[in-house]
Amino acid sequence: MGLTIGVDIGGTKIAAGVVDEEGSILATCKVPTPDTPEGVIDAIADAVRTVSEGFEVEAVGIGAAGYVDDKRATVLFAPNINWRHEALKDKVEQRVGLPVVVENDANAAAWGEYRFGAGQGHDDVICITLGTGLGGGIIIGNKLRRGRFGVAAEFGHIRVVPDGLLCGCGSQGCWEQYASGRALVRYAKQRAQATPENAEILLGLGDGTVEGIEGKHISDAARQGDPVAIDSFRELARWAGAGLADLASLFDPSAFIVGGGVSDEGDLVLDPIRKSFRRWLVGGQWRPHAQVLAAQLGGKAGLVGAADLARQG
Amino acid sequence: MGLTIGVDIGGTKIAAGVVDEEGSILATCKVPTPDTPEGVIDAIADAVRTVSEGFEVEAVGIGAAGYVDDKRATVLFAPNINWRHEALKDKVEQRVGLPVVVENDANAAAWGEYRFGAGQGHDDVICITLGTGLGGGIIIGNKLRRGRFGVAAEFGHIRVVPDGLLCGCGSQGCWEQYASGRALVRYAKQRAQATPENAEILLGLGDGTVEGIEGKHISDAARQGDPVAIDSFRELARWAGAGLADLASLFDPSAFIVGGGVSDEGDLVLDPIRKSFRRWLVGGQWRPHAQVLAAQLGGKAGLVGAADLARQG
Amino acid sequence: MGLTIGVDIGGTKIAAGVVDEEGSILATCKVPTPDTPEGVIDAIADAVRTVSEGFEVEAVGIGAAGYVDDKRATVLFAPNINWRHEALKDKVEQRVGLPVVVENDANAAAWGEYRFGAGQGHDDVICITLGTGLGGGIIIGNKLRRGRFGVAAEFGHIRVVPDGLLCGCGSQGCWEQYASGRALVRYAKQRAQATPENAEILLGLGDGTVEGIEGKHISDAARQGDPVAIDSFRELARWAGAGLADLASLFDPSAFIVGGGVSDEGDLVLDPIRKSFRRWLVGGQWRPHAQVLAAQLGGKAGLVGAADLARQG
Amino acid sequence: MGLTIGVDIGGTKIAAGVVDEEGSILATCKVPTPDTPEGVIDAIADAVRTVSEGFEVEAVGIGAAGYVDDKRATVLFAPNINWRHEALKDKVEQRVGLPVVVENDANAAAWGEYRFGAGQGHDDVICITLGTGLGGGIIIGNKLRRGRFGVAAEFGHIRVVPDGLLCGCGSQGCWEQYASGRALVRYAKQRAQATPENAEILLGLGDGTVEGIEGKHISDAARQGDPVAIDSFRELARWAGAGLADLASLFDPSAFIVGGGVSDEGDLVLDPIRKSFRRWLVGGQWRPHAQVLAAQLGGKAGLVGAADLARQG
Repeated sequence: MGLTIGVDIGGTKIAAGVVDEEGSILATCKVPTPDTPEGVIDAIADAVRTVSEGFEVEAVGIGAAGYVDDKRATVLFAPNINWRHEALKDKVEQRVGLPVVVENDANAAAWGEYRFGAGQGHDDVICITLGTGLGGGIIIGNKLRRGRFGVAAEFGHIRVVPDGLLCGCGSQGCWEQYASGRALVRYAKQRAQATPENAEILLGLGDGTVEGIEGKHISDAARQGDPVAIDSFRELARWAGAGLADLASLFDPSAFIVGGGVSDEGDLVLDPIRKSFRRWLVGGQWRPHAQVLAAQLGGKAGLVGAADLARQG
Repeated sequence: MGLTIGVDIGGTKIAAGVVDEEGSILATCKVPTPDTPEGVIDAIADAVRTVSEGFEVEAVGIGAAGYVDDKRATVLFAPNINWRHEALKDKVEQRVGLPVVVENDANAAAWGEYRFGAGQGHDDVICITLGTGLGGGIIIGNKLRRGRFGVAAEFGHIRVVPDGLLCGCGSQGCWEQYASGRALVRYAKQRAQATPENAEILLGLGDGTVEGIEGKHISDAARQGDPVAIDSFRELARWAGAGLADLASLFDPSAFIVGGGVSDEGDLVLDPIRKSFRRWLVGGQWRPHAQVLAAQLGGKAGLVGAADLARQG
Repeated sequence: MGLTIGVDIGGTKIAAGVVDEEGSILATCKVPTPDTPEGVIDAIADAVRTVSEGFEVEAVGIGAAGYVDDKRATVLFAPNINWRHEALKDKVEQRVGLPVVVENDANAAAWGEYRFGAGQGHDDVICITLGTGLGGGIIIGNKLRRGRFGVAAEFGHIRVVPDGLLCGCGSQGCWEQYASGRALVRYAKQRAQATPENAEILLGLGDGTVEGIEGKHISDAARQGDPVAIDSFRELARWAGAGLADLASLFDPSAFIVGGGVSDEGDLVLDPIRKSFRRWLVGGQWRPHAQVLAAQLGGKAGLVGAADLARQG
Repeated sequence: MGLTIGVDIGGTKIAAGVVDEEGSILATCKVPTPDTPEGVIDAIADAVRTVSEGFEVEAVGIGAAGYVDDKRATVLFAPNINWRHEALKDKVEQRVGLPVVVENDANAAAWGEYRFGAGQGHDDVICITLGTGLGGGIIIGNKLRRGRFGVAAEFGHIRVVPDGLLCGCGSQGCWEQYASGRALVRYAKQRAQATPENAEILLGLGDGTVEGIEGKHISDAARQGDPVAIDSFRELARWAGAGLADLASLFDPSAFIVGGGVSDEGDLVLDPIRKSFRRWLVGGQWRPHAQVLAAQLGGKAGLVGAADLARQG
């Protein structure tokens, strides 16, 4: 099979791209994400038609946040868009006249990294995406593992603190409340509130208030040696690494790939995560250790992965 | 392939059995587990030779507690026997003249249940074994998943309580400290100590002291309505079910199989586990629920599973 | 000294009452709580003048949520009203021409119960108020203990779960997030969401939705045997009793008094709290146990206590 | 009253000393702690007689680990010596012919520091003793507060981690499992096991093995910059400071005094505790902060305090 289209549905933008067999993106377009469920489907169809102009395209892969069923056809539940048992595959196929595969966005990103990014050469890889929340994907035996009902790899919602922080999912103590971009900002705000004298650089990068602290300030401040920013990354890494150690006990992969916005900071965040992983790995002296790798495709992993999954049919 | 031998190495006994293609055990023998690493290997060889008398046997599968390498040949680390990087496959093959496959004991038991027990008909099954500790096995896509380095499915050692109970593995807060036969006895002792008037039946079944409480007393007392015993099972189920909910977020299997001595109690322990699982399952209203099934092979699952894995080669 | 006035500043109403030496309320008035800090002070003064009509009154005691300084004059911080270092004593004295004593509202309620309610006859009593949040008061050696700076007995904000639920105070895992009226509603909603079939009575008492569950429904449903409601009270009691056990390790009082709206339910909530307290009390077999008593003055404890503290000067 | 004798009953030695009104020790003697309950009483009497030789002594104060009743006469329970409801006061009075006061050892130490050490000039002081375990004492309004039944200030056994580490008291998650000399050694061992390359200095100070790590090695290694040792002190401080923040919410003292062997390290341990205390103090911006002071009397605090309590009668 030759060219396919990958679609990445984000909270504010829908991105579509024509992708070849090597994972190269030949053309892209972006449109704003409409407000209504039906509007999103129209926008996907429009984006697919626009971007495919001049290309011979054979299939479409769509990455969407939420639960996707085992047939990769229906979105059972999407937290951001009001989709409940939405027959996304059928509706988009009718509009664009191409075979469509729907996939969870973090699964698609994991597949992208496995095929064309940091996961190349590995048979068994676990990916985590540290964005606003925490998503994941499982590759075992060179296959994406979706579970019996399609909703595997919801790493962000394993419970790491009994009776812990409330999560949007309705549960408490979910991993993404402790290891995600949102958690990082919370760590920084709490620490800046308690000890503002250790957050002078950090506060200076924003509007000077604790409330005004944003994620990008924290990385910049950490690079400049701000104690609160550094300690916030350390806290994030403490939870991220401990969780990876649990995933190693469960899956024993050859590599973990850490992607998502937080991981754009590279070794600033990866080195503490590696240390923490090693600190918490059970039986560490008696077993080979998985590598902890930075994702390589950045924000394109989902689009490229979705396109490739469509190619595989 | 026809008949194979399964070997189950326990803390006190080594059991060997001739198993046919339907998982039936045609002959068995048991010998005491020797004290020395080399003694155990001799005992395995003796048991294999004894039990195979009169049968035409094609291979041997050995289930052992501990880390087994990805070649299913070497025990990297065994907690009970003093094996460290022990070339078990080679040594037994030399002694018995048959091809040998080594497998983690909980993996072997999971495979046994998948092939001949509660897991028949399922493609994606997660097994947990609630014995003295907590072990597990992963079947995805009809294959036993061992991880890249052979040490996957160490469910007992995921961290469910940060800074929690010390575990024999050197870590803290491991699941098996909260969901296992040992945990059940601790729950009962703590409760009987605090409120002996609610543990009259339980205490009456043993020597009358809190220290004398054993696992079998707790099940008997629970059946007779002892409040402390019932509450102890409820506490066990609270942790077991919450952990299964996490495993559902990760693996999304069609079924969980709960085996091990604790599960011999059947619905006395399984019903509360099912309730707790349902209570903690994330996104439960938007997804199909995995079944929670009782294991069917009892203590033979490991032996039968190891034999079948040897048959598969 | 004869008659004094107690003032209780609530979120929606300000109540003032003339109280005699036996703790009897001779007259009361209630006014709505104004929006502005200065407005509240005017309203207090008006209420004092109104209610004192026809009585010879010698002093005023005011109970306010928040931190009150060691001179019982200044509100350092009030969470509900926008008071920051507010000289409440001076401002009210200027308006009403009577000596004024300011006290934390939970402290005032504790004193009321100690003097005229469940605490009579005890020298060392710890009170907790399970209202929307959780407040407390300490009586040791027949004196209200306010701490060196006036802000002792902030029981609601001791940390009972590291990395636990966010609290309005900016911290995490505070006791009041687990033992309070608000916590009770959360427990019921979470359980009704997960297992609606066990919450039929509870849901029937409100508008039929999980979101529509209110505190009063939970008590009514529990009395009617609703499993979710009963389990929600049990969870509340688990945390309340464990916290009392900690307070016993710290203060070793002869009695705990449990007040606040939640405690209006009497033994429905107190019996499980007593059980839980006993379950968690450290060294319980080697020491006399404190009694766990229901408060007797209901919502008047704060007003009566503030008046009496003003009498004592 | 003039001279009194203080007795400090330790696990290996019993120390007695003649103490004057300024808290100066005029004479001391030490004897090994006998094995039997009765033997200990004889040894106390012998030590008192020996040390009082040549002095006119008016009373004896004895500090003992365990629960002492409200009459300061009977040891209800001693964890180390096999005393259960032991009438220590009567038995020693009969043997030495002087009035005897019995006190919990941590209470006695707290009183010593309050009267002659770091607590001078404070009316409301909370002391914690970070020794092998964690003990405490409460001074409010210039009086030692013992609780209604004599067993207040058992700080070491408040629960800081639900379902946490087992404690010798039978409970789980007790503060002393996380903030004590024993905890410090555990932190160091766990870290040295996981990352021996960061513990080279630490391991070099002992016998080279993780098991051989002792408390004194950790302080020495921390001073020499060993990462594992420094991180172990940081972990200890994390828990100690968070607990002090809780005690501030409860007692609001003007000062905390940190004593016990761990505190001998001075600012090496106190500075991180101060930081952690400030980090976790609820409402820290709206209230005066208690000071966190190092104890001044070292190992003599208990003896001096017990003597002074006897003087006060």
